[in-house]
Amino acid sequence: MDRIRKVVANISEIDPVIIKKTQERLDNLTKPLGSLGRLEELARKICGITGKENPSLRNKVIFTLASDHGVTEEGVSAYPKEVTAQMVYNFLSGGAGINVLANHVGARVVVVDIGVASDLKPDPRLVVKKINYGTKNMAKGPAMTRDEAIKAICAGIEIFEDEFKAGIDIAGTGDMGIGNTTASSAITAVFTKKPIEEITGRGTGLDDKGLKNKIDIIRKSISLNKPDSSDPIDVLSKVGGFEIAGLAGIILAAASKRVPVVLDGFISGAAALAAFHIEPKVKDYMIAAHCSVESGHKVILEHIGLKPLFDLDLRLGEGTGGALGIGLADAAIKILTEMATFKSANVSEKKK
Amino acid sequence: MDRIRKVVANISEIDPVIIKKTQERLDNLTKPLGSLGRLEELARKICGITGKENPSLRNKVIFTLASDHGVTEEGVSAYPKEVTAQMVYNFLSGGAGINVLANHVGARVVVVDIGVASDLKPDPRLVVKKINYGTKNMAKGPAMTRDEAIKAICAGIEIFEDEFKAGIDIAGTGDMGIGNTTASSAITAVFTKKPIEEITGRGTGLDDKGLKNKIDIIRKSISLNKPDSSDPIDVLSKVGGFEIAGLAGIILAAASKRVPVVLDGFISGAAALAAFHIEPKVKDYMIAAHCSVESGHKVILEHIGLKPLFDLDLRLGEGTGGALGIGLADAAIKILTEMATFKSANVSEKKK
Repeated sequence: MDRIRKVVANISEIDPVIIKKTQERLDNLTKPLGSLGRLEELARKICGITGKENPSLRNKVIFTLASDHGVTEEGVSAYPKEVTAQMVYNFLSGGAGINVLANHVGARVVVVDIGVASDLKPDPRLVVKKINYGTKNMAKGPAMTRDEAIKAICAGIEIFEDEFKAGIDIAGTGDMGIGNTTASSAITAVFTKKPIEEITGRGTGLDDKGLKNKIDIIRKSISLNKPDSSDPIDVLSKVGGFEIAGLAGIILAAASKRVPVVLDGFISGAAALAAFHIEPKVKDYMIAAHCSVESGHKVILEHIGLKPLFDLDLRLGEGTGGALGIGLADAAIKILTEMATFKSANVSEKKK
Repeated sequence: MDRIRKVVANISEIDPVIIKKTQERLDNLTKPLGSLGRLEELARKICGITGKENPSLRNKVIFTLASDHGVTEEGVSAYPKEVTAQMVYNFLSGGAGINVLANHVGARVVVVDIGVASDLKPDPRLVVKKINYGTKNMAKGPAMTRDEAIKAICAGIEIFEDEFKAGIDIAGTGDMGIGNTTASSAITAVFTKKPIEEITGRGTGLDDKGLKNKIDIIRKSISLNKPDSSDPIDVLSKVGGFEIAGLAGIILAAASKRVPVVLDGFISGAAALAAFHIEPKVKDYMIAAHCSVESGHKVILEHIGLKPLFDLDLRLGEGTGGALGIGLADAAIKILTEMATFKSANVSEKKK
């Protein structure tokens, strides 16, 4: 807990002065005032977060955390549990969606086993921070112990801080875990108090019957475990997942180091929700890349107060939407730092 | 007219077989079925357009056509007319928004003087296809002669075909022309029959009084010139612009060469509208990048039947939104061609 407290204590308010200065600078560039809309908003936000007038986004890192979920016993996913481990190998060999999209935007992917249910073949590129062999079935009891939830958040902090030594200018969050939309819906229900039906989706592709079962299992898990919404660690331990808790740690650590963190979809959103309930100031460090097909994601973003950059009907996870968001952040900073001013380009300004 | 007819005759239907095959291939990649949403749609569309199962998007070209508008005499823009020429120099020296965003996505920008009101300093990078020194004031008579409208469309075709020799895998449309949202609103009103108030925006930043004047001028121009909506050349000549007609030519030429063409904002939309009314089949070759702040743009996209990829509150033009759309198209094709399949990565498929 001490480590989490220390990180949280280091999360400061964003500097409004640099945000104002950034807009003034944007207003001098050769374009009508405000005409680059949300790219300008992004540039302002990134300058505010980093405290830098000329931030560089050279080092882009996407953290893809993999873990298993005991609740898959209840038939809540369209894919078998083994897929979590199989996909980790796919990440390591570069064949997954996140590899392709991270390459596309010039980001590196840090793949983490934070709780895969099997022992994975050793690989120098795989970060192993295994808290346990998957969570327990939350429909029968808490998904993990309180101590495990704290350890998972701390593992996220460690992963971020280790990687930060090599340089991180912008971070993205990603996940892999068969069953993790079930945990994310449960977390969302507890924190936002919205009806479970409203925030539960088909995940990787459930049919109507499967969706009904998933909703029932989430309802059962919450009524059995009674997570306390005023205690985010309690929520994460009772109905969370190791990758979700780990991502919450990464988000908090990024904020404490003044690194913008681009959120992917629903699972990253559930992690962001937990981080936000641990420390609301973290919101200002978050960039919501997209709005997922999973209905709970929109509810999370509204609850935190984030407006997604785009909606491309994505529901893959892994950090894929976040990667595209990092690409837009890059574009926004290039606009700020590479465009000519009215003066330097000898272009007439707006009529008075 | 013969040249336009020839190009139009070469626009064929999209092959449904390759679209189906592309989806089958996407369904074998290591991701839940359909989970990359509109990126999958983009990949299918690009395969359908190009007729290639493994399209490459190496050669990305954005055509930014600049021209002046006589209607600026009526005070319809917040910026002085000289800005059109000044911005052409800015494009050539690489300081404009389009330069930054084209670089960001790896596209080259072809800058064209198709009707700037002054003679520009010769520059080997500037394509000069000047039809006239700006259009005439459409509030007092036709913006151009019918012959000039045809010449401007043919100039667009020529520009595309010349550049096509150097290779174009995907094209983007862009514009520069103080006053051109006025022409675009007029074109939109004529083709879509929507009320002028509904499809007229503030352009580069008009105040309420300026917006009212702009609406009045558009109304006057339409009632004076009586453009015939069943004759797109008539519409372009009476209330259009050289860059708008030129872009219509580029769009038709791209379709005739089976090159996907990514539309930027409102001005590109007006050009697309004219191209669509010349030959409706051209729609299938268009990709709508974004939805502009200019209210008429949404109406155009609905009229043609295109759904924009994103909405970032952009209203700069030049091809900037199109550039970001090209970046997404690139991502979509990389997903299709670089991801592992379930089989190659040894990942279990969905439960039956």
